[in-house]
Amino acid sequence: MPRTRFEEQLKLLHTTLIQLGALCEDAINAAAKALLTGDQALVKKAMEAEQEIDRLESEIEALCFKLLLHQQPVASDLREISAALKMISDLERIGDQAADIAELTEHINIPLDSTNLHIADMTKAVIKMVTESIDAFVRKDIDLARKVMADDDVVDTLFDQIKGELETMVKSDAASISGALDLLMVVKYLERIGDHATNVAEWVEYSITGVHPEGN
Amino acid sequence: MPRTRFEEQLKLLHTTLIQLGALCEDAINAAAKALLTGDQALVKKAMEAEQEIDRLESEIEALCFKLLLHQQPVASDLREISAALKMISDLERIGDQAADIAELTEHINIPLDSTNLHIADMTKAVIKMVTESIDAFVRKDIDLARKVMADDDVVDTLFDQIKGELETMVKSDAASISGALDLLMVVKYLERIGDHATNVAEWVEYSITGVHPEGN
Repeated sequence: MPRTRFEEQLKLLHTTLIQLGALCEDAINAAAKALLTGDQALVKKAMEAEQEIDRLESEIEALCFKLLLHQQPVASDLREISAALKMISDLERIGDQAADIAELTEHINIPLDSTNLHIADMTKAVIKMVTESIDAFVRKDIDLARKVMADDDVVDTLFDQIKGELETMVKSDAASISGALDLLMVVKYLERIGDHATNVAEWVEYSITGVHPEGN
Repeated sequence: MPRTRFEEQLKLLHTTLIQLGALCEDAINAAAKALLTGDQALVKKAMEAEQEIDRLESEIEALCFKLLLHQQPVASDLREISAALKMISDLERIGDQAADIAELTEHINIPLDSTNLHIADMTKAVIKMVTESIDAFVRKDIDLARKVMADDDVVDTLFDQIKGELETMVKSDAASISGALDLLMVVKYLERIGDHATNVAEWVEYSITGVHPEGN
């Protein structure tokens, strides 16, 4: 295959990765809105997005293996493809976690708009991380990648804060324990989505510099 | 490189994967014992195992890329290497989750031997899944791989059971909420370890049959 064919396939890899990232955002958005509104149509939407994410992950993986086997790329081309293989595994798990959140919303019996829980803030923060991590890859923007890594601290702080809010809620009403445990799972999934977006950002840095920030 | 060099490298891949699997078992064992006994030396042991797991994951990944690029394997050889790349990502996350459990044990203020929580049972069940999933890969044993997939239901049932036990605990003593939330995280990590062992088993089935049981 000529070099141009390689470049064409790399471009296809980029556009498919952007699609995959957009689907992850859709899945988290749908799951979060389902949680806040109880709208079951949104639960279904998150589940469908998750299936589409799995399909696209397989498609990108096959494309990466094709590029590796037929082009035997070296240096930055090899790094870009190996980084893409890692990133899709994180994006796939983001889809799983959005579906897990959507599934939990069917059981949660606490009207969230009547609480002071900071779940909407946390959702907004993780969606931003996911969007920016993909943007950083496509634009090869190392500063944006590092911003995503730094933002993970904000998400972790929100997790601790909401955990504290749930404790207070249960202490004043022990009967709310069942909903509190489910909500803790929801915020744990959101926190994990933040971790996966951080992983994506770290692979972006690796694909640009050749050095993984965590030494992996 | 002659074919025998390829076979040598495949053998190295197997032995390193077995090492990685054994380290995952060590990490879970140390974390679980730290949880049950409060022994801080075991927390340290789990953390060290996690770091060694990350190192081995990188080593195996480099070996897989070397095999892909220099040997351009096809058919079952290609499947075996692509399955290994997936499996190490699951094993690495098992190490992370064991370290997460170990970290939580430093905060948990509930003497677990005085409760009726089924955490020790769940730990035993997930360690068995991890061991058997690696055995299935090395021995190319599809029946054992399918047994691991089936055992995940047992782990999921234990998760629901312990969640119910935690609810009962908090309803009779609202002050136990903080420990209950941490313990829910612990059993969630154990449940995720079961999911990752299931993923490994599914990749074993794929590498043997060419068909992923979940259609991935």
